[in-house]
Amino acid sequence: MSKRSIDLNSDMGEGFGPWTIGDGVDEAIMPLISSANIATGFHAGDPRIMNRTVLQAREHGVCIGAHPGFRDLVGFGRRDMRESAEALVHDIVYQLGALREFARLHGLRLQHVKPHGALYMQAARDEALSRRLIETLQELEPTLALYCMESSVTYRLARELNQPVVREFYADRDYDASGSIVFTRYTQPLDPAQVAEKVLRACTEGRVRTVEGKDIPIDFDSVCIHSDTPGALSLVRATREKLEAHGIRIAPPSVTGP
Amino acid sequence: MSKRSIDLNSDMGEGFGPWTIGDGVDEAIMPLISSANIATGFHAGDPRIMNRTVLQAREHGVCIGAHPGFRDLVGFGRRDMRESAEALVHDIVYQLGALREFARLHGLRLQHVKPHGALYMQAARDEALSRRLIETLQELEPTLALYCMESSVTYRLARELNQPVVREFYADRDYDASGSIVFTRYTQPLDPAQVAEKVLRACTEGRVRTVEGKDIPIDFDSVCIHSDTPGALSLVRATREKLEAHGIRIAPPSVTGP
Amino acid sequence: MSKRSIDLNSDMGEGFGPWTIGDGVDEAIMPLISSANIATGFHAGDPRIMNRTVLQAREHGVCIGAHPGFRDLVGFGRRDMRESAEALVHDIVYQLGALREFARLHGLRLQHVKPHGALYMQAARDEALSRRLIETLQELEPTLALYCMESSVTYRLARELNQPVVREFYADRDYDASGSIVFTRYTQPLDPAQVAEKVLRACTEGRVRTVEGKDIPIDFDSVCIHSDTPGALSLVRATREKLEAHGIRIAPPSVTGP
Amino acid sequence: MSKRSIDLNSDMGEGFGPWTIGDGVDEAIMPLISSANIATGFHAGDPRIMNRTVLQAREHGVCIGAHPGFRDLVGFGRRDMRESAEALVHDIVYQLGALREFARLHGLRLQHVKPHGALYMQAARDEALSRRLIETLQELEPTLALYCMESSVTYRLARELNQPVVREFYADRDYDASGSIVFTRYTQPLDPAQVAEKVLRACTEGRVRTVEGKDIPIDFDSVCIHSDTPGALSLVRATREKLEAHGIRIAPPSVTGP
Repeated sequence: MSKRSIDLNSDMGEGFGPWTIGDGVDEAIMPLISSANIATGFHAGDPRIMNRTVLQAREHGVCIGAHPGFRDLVGFGRRDMRESAEALVHDIVYQLGALREFARLHGLRLQHVKPHGALYMQAARDEALSRRLIETLQELEPTLALYCMESSVTYRLARELNQPVVREFYADRDYDASGSIVFTRYTQPLDPAQVAEKVLRACTEGRVRTVEGKDIPIDFDSVCIHSDTPGALSLVRATREKLEAHGIRIAPPSVTGP
Repeated sequence: MSKRSIDLNSDMGEGFGPWTIGDGVDEAIMPLISSANIATGFHAGDPRIMNRTVLQAREHGVCIGAHPGFRDLVGFGRRDMRESAEALVHDIVYQLGALREFARLHGLRLQHVKPHGALYMQAARDEALSRRLIETLQELEPTLALYCMESSVTYRLARELNQPVVREFYADRDYDASGSIVFTRYTQPLDPAQVAEKVLRACTEGRVRTVEGKDIPIDFDSVCIHSDTPGALSLVRATREKLEAHGIRIAPPSVTGP
Repeated sequence: MSKRSIDLNSDMGEGFGPWTIGDGVDEAIMPLISSANIATGFHAGDPRIMNRTVLQAREHGVCIGAHPGFRDLVGFGRRDMRESAEALVHDIVYQLGALREFARLHGLRLQHVKPHGALYMQAARDEALSRRLIETLQELEPTLALYCMESSVTYRLARELNQPVVREFYADRDYDASGSIVFTRYTQPLDPAQVAEKVLRACTEGRVRTVEGKDIPIDFDSVCIHSDTPGALSLVRATREKLEAHGIRIAPPSVTGP
Repeated sequence: MSKRSIDLNSDMGEGFGPWTIGDGVDEAIMPLISSANIATGFHAGDPRIMNRTVLQAREHGVCIGAHPGFRDLVGFGRRDMRESAEALVHDIVYQLGALREFARLHGLRLQHVKPHGALYMQAARDEALSRRLIETLQELEPTLALYCMESSVTYRLARELNQPVVREFYADRDYDASGSIVFTRYTQPLDPAQVAEKVLRACTEGRVRTVEGKDIPIDFDSVCIHSDTPGALSLVRATREKLEAHGIRIAPPSVTGP
């Protein structure tokens, strides 16, 4: 029952103006992944970076999606913000269109949208926000995939409303017994071999060890490794090599659609 | 040789967050114009306002275009900024796409793009910027009209490169002998009757009186009245009534295309 | 036991760039109040407006204070945001200093600080934030007054830590039985005579009618009327006239200090 | 006639939110310099970073100054912008005050102000801007030192108006025959030994080799090494060691005052 292929996604283009994020290794990571979530300017990313990132993705045949966040550069979109579902979805529409125009310019189409940081987490638990987002996507583009966690409200509603979804497995985050990711501060960089092993096991056995030390079943369509995790490049490389060595191909998701 | 119909355009949606611009009369102006230049967030406008403005335009059958500006909210895009043509066109692509997504959401297509303020003026005299913009438009959408002045480099290059152009006549600005608009600080609001008369004369005789007091010939496809000019609503209303009373219909431009 | 004098405060300078707020009547309100809360750039206000507002206050002998908000222009600082007390107090220190420099330039000193909107409300209920803010004020300037509601955590801690406080009465907001203000959407402008009467009664009887229809006791050192409430100028004028007609002078608070 | 001591200044705290600049080596550079120009939020820097940077400076006994820039994060304050002297000086006052408040919080006083990037260069050639800035400094704090180039209008006016000035020598920039710095794109990192040698020669002989290959006399009170120059830490370290090995002490400038 092991997977034959799996999507590998990473957040790309999360610099701003003169600044890069993490180890500044987007260019090295891009050839190793199959889907790129491109920052769209509200939490990170600017038009110059978006243009360059779309070109990098095209060069390596990587599928692209919009990675919209809260309008919060200084907080990198990681601070939760009280706002109406309506206003937040306007923000997402704006950012989605901005990226789509660069895709259009370079002859690509968008594969997906994946909200960033606190917006992703807010959508995961807020029914009004997820519903509004999915209903809007259905008017905009009923075939655009939405990345989310299987444990989220977003997933449940997308399935219900027939919007294609891609469930993510977080290689560089820990899980709790409920199947949610937990925020852990690591005192040292993650070990690439361990991360690769964890992903391989999730792909082949469909299980992951939780922070409580028990195994839970996990199902997913894509593996996410954050490009701003320290040592991200090593994690991506080790994971890809490990999966390929076990006959699992890295490829864009076959979308769970209607 | 009088015109039978003429486009009437105005900048719309130039508020931001809690703030409106000018007299806050967008809603009253919208039914009176044929083309709306919608602010796209860099000098003014935010996703909520853009969404609302697109809906207002749709309600009144008004054609819409993107009105991208410099990234300068505090200066309202009126401060000239030194930046490469490449980076500025990235900024325009970003903003164009953001508006296009709202148009898509509401079943409209974009008619045009019109840079705002200092960006419009910089393009008017900077060959590299106009060329890069037009070449990019040709890759993005060779039928998208570009609003500009006949005296501009933008106009000359758009004709040369076969991008559709719409030449503007500024009802609420003065002209000099070169056919360029001059910046004048009015100590009191413009007189609607005089503005309407000036537009009528330009439409019927193809002439305008310059600040130096001489007449020059003028040709154009659209009349622009700025929505943040004090008394804008009266100016638009008087102009529209005057033109219609003389048998000139207000209608979107028949684009000067390839 | 009626008050002999009372402070009348209003938020001033809440425009940004080309935009003004509410009816744009700061200039007319300034001569009628005794304390101005000057927006400091994060939710509204920019350096040019701050400079002008400080000069207006000086011209009319109005005491000034900083009115720092969340870094959220588009939301006008009215959207709650999750952030550490430490980071929020850094934001306040930054904004406080920015205003203090304009005061210094024009030979004034700051009387007070009053957080804006969602930041004010967050401080009102969040002990960590209020404590950090007050401890920081004590290092910066132990005589700077802090505006807050008597029902707030901020008030309790400021008294405990001996930072001067000014308790506010909101003329243009409704109260509930707990003495907290409640958010009400008015379908029509407030009646100046009623607002003035409500303030007079609070000043002379120390009571206010709640939304539930009962009277509660209320004590305060300052009356706040928001400059962006529709018809703000009429409210301020009616209130001031009413109070003065009953022998209550408008004057800066005698601060409840250590 | 060699110098006995010289100031060594560097721009500090030029990150924003999650982003750091250059090699992210502020913490390592701080102990090696005598004056820190701290970014104040318009081109870089945020309240959290400013607080931390002021603390780092205090820890190492480094003098601090404000480093205000154009309001242009995405362009890092390096894009020239047309704006009135009045408005630009308001921007500087705002930023100066913001930093001064952190200095106040931590028991330090400001030694100087040094405009950043395009604002520094605009002041260097624009008499109205330099005059307005210096006149404002004289009202604010007539003893605050202004960092500038000897070849600038800023220097001439500061001397004329008796504002203390500190003339800079740019270790990591090239000079032309006029004594101005020229913008050079280096294809590889600067050689620390060469930079140190160049600074030593400037300190001991008062001469620098221009891009045209000739020597010109140069006088200055401070050596600037940009913290975002690749390999900045090596350059600072090599320069400091070289100077100290030749008996030249690194110390804050004895300001050229009235």
